[in-house]
Amino acid sequence: MKSQEPRSSSSCAACKFLKRRCTPNCQFAPYFRSDEPKKFAKVHKVFGASNVSKILNEVPEEHREDAVNSLVFEAEVRLQDPVYGCIGAIASLQHKMVELQHDLFLARSRLACFLDHPTLPLDHFAPFHYP
Amino acid sequence: MKSQEPRSSSSCAACKFLKRRCTPNCQFAPYFRSDEPKKFAKVHKVFGASNVSKILNEVPEEHREDAVNSLVFEAEVRLQDPVYGCIGAIASLQHKMVELQHDLFLARSRLACFLDHPTLPLDHFAPFHYP
Repeated sequence: MKSQEPRSSSSCAACKFLKRRCTPNCQFAPYFRSDEPKKFAKVHKVFGASNVSKILNEVPEEHREDAVNSLVFEAEVRLQDPVYGCIGAIASLQHKMVELQHDLFLARSRLACFLDHPTLPLDHFAPFHYP
Repeated sequence: MKSQEPRSSSSCAACKFLKRRCTPNCQFAPYFRSDEPKKFAKVHKVFGASNVSKILNEVPEEHREDAVNSLVFEAEVRLQDPVYGCIGAIASLQHKMVELQHDLFLARSRLACFLDHPTLPLDHFAPFHYP
């Protein structure tokens, strides 16, 4: 019966998406406002409502908003990059870190060389590329 | 009937986990060998079999192994850190990158200062901390 499936504007985005009654103690309501339908659709598509619910149950209440935000971000990245998801972002950051560590090592080595041999001619320290 | 639920040793880890017949064209079999039960259990717990199946369907066959590996990694990280998952790793890498960029800027600025004013006394360039 229609009356058992309310579609009030106060239903959270998750209950609207799942087409179910949004109760006062709805687990999703604090994190998926009725005006954020895409937010729940994304986590539902990647993790599924049941798994999101299980993760929220495992997490203390004060960390649930962070958990939802990280799940939404992770879902967005996976939807953009179905093959690598967040692992693509992690690999890219690790690659950039290795480059930065190499550049830092080079700059510090040259600086150390300067400090140890201040009388050497300047061209001894070339090539040096400024950022 | 028992005969309809085979438990042959050739069933893939996914079909064993889901207690279903593993057919020759099983979508999971190439990526979840029968001797890797935990690999499927992890992605099942975080993403669910249905969502893993959907993601594999979206991805060209030559990228499916990478997709499975990234899903397994992402699931492992989420199980270890239910609040932040991979986002925790990304945030930590970004923080380290900002520190490295700062250190590199500092080292290059000091080196540039040296190159511009080679006659200045050495203590002008202190403090400098080697890595």
